Amino acid sequence: MEKIILGIDPGTTLMGYGVLRVADRKVEMQALGVIDLRKYADHYLKLGRIFERVSGIIESYLPDEMAIEAPFFGKNVQSMLKLGRAQGVAMAAAIHRQVPITEYAPMKIKMAITGNGNASKEQVAYMLQKMLHLSPDEMGRYLDATDALGAAYCHYLQMGRPTSEKKYSSWKDFARKNNII
Amino acid sequence: MEKIILGIDPGTTLMGYGVLRVADRKVEMQALGVIDLRKYADHYLKLGRIFERVSGIIESYLPDEMAIEAPFFGKNVQSMLKLGRAQGVAMAAAIHRQVPITEYAPMKIKMAITGNGNASKEQVAYMLQKMLHLSPDEMGRYLDATDALGAAYCHYLQMGRPTSEKKYSSWKDFARKNNII
Repeated sequence: MEKIILGIDPGTTLMGYGVLRVADRKVEMQALGVIDLRKYADHYLKLGRIFERVSGIIESYLPDEMAIEAPFFGKNVQSMLKLGRAQGVAMAAAIHRQVPITEYAPMKIKMAITGNGNASKEQVAYMLQKMLHLSPDEMGRYLDATDALGAAYCHYLQMGRPTSEKKYSSWKDFARKNNII
Repeated sequence: MEKIILGIDPGTTLMGYGVLRVADRKVEMQALGVIDLRKYADHYLKLGRIFERVSGIIESYLPDEMAIEAPFFGKNVQSMLKLGRAQGVAMAAAIHRQVPITEYAPMKIKMAITGNGNASKEQVAYMLQKMLHLSPDEMGRYLDATDALGAAYCHYLQMGRPTSEKKYSSWKDFARKNNII
């Protein structure tokens, strides 16, 4: 059975993505990339670009599942509102095409991949590079896509686990199971 | 020249909407409604429902413009992230159909409609009812759609102003055009 997992790290300056293909318990990378949103001064152009690109990636790779790296804390309410909008737009692209979404907190992704919830981006990138047999070049060029690929890989690891661990019935449930507040 | 304005108040428990038709400097209400999201326990189902309904409203009324009531402050980062997601999903539905979006802070809407930035929801509803010749019943039944209809009406009022007054390229530009500092 084949499964395609799309990992997304939606931000307001950079958006990372990574596509994994899982078949016969083997996993390989299909795509990795970063979309630079800094050149769009207008807030709606940024959101529009995120929607457009996530839609395009979904149409190209036809993922069965989408995994999002979703921080639940931010500097302030303003930055969280902006982040929420970027996440919402990326989620809408998936919802629109009936692709189920699973969220992973950054710490959970780091823990799943390196065994350390406080691992650096470089450590996560190094582990992903080893596990997916990527060249240092491939990984290095798209270091900002590490979190997205990490989310997809974390979802792949979770897929083997019992359902009760990976499904959340509500926001409260998610927060509780991830020890948020 | 006819113009259709869709007003949206995207929340995570209730989503209000209002549609105004402007023709020959006359304005009339075309639609008013509230979507109750409380029955969807799942966070993604809520977001999916917002995307679906806003898309449906856009397809039904073919608005030329969308006005969103967008608070910029909230109790905490968690609620702002949730609100940002709801806004982002509603915005994606408009962006997807090339409908331009304008945001209005709640205070600005209240000020534009009642002349008082701290007016109550009932005062705003009363003024809208008078200006749009609605029956008290119509307005009363959809009191939660007041902010959405208010956003659309605020946008209608803004449309009459010269372009130079309503568009700002930056905060500096805003300050200069409004003789601040």
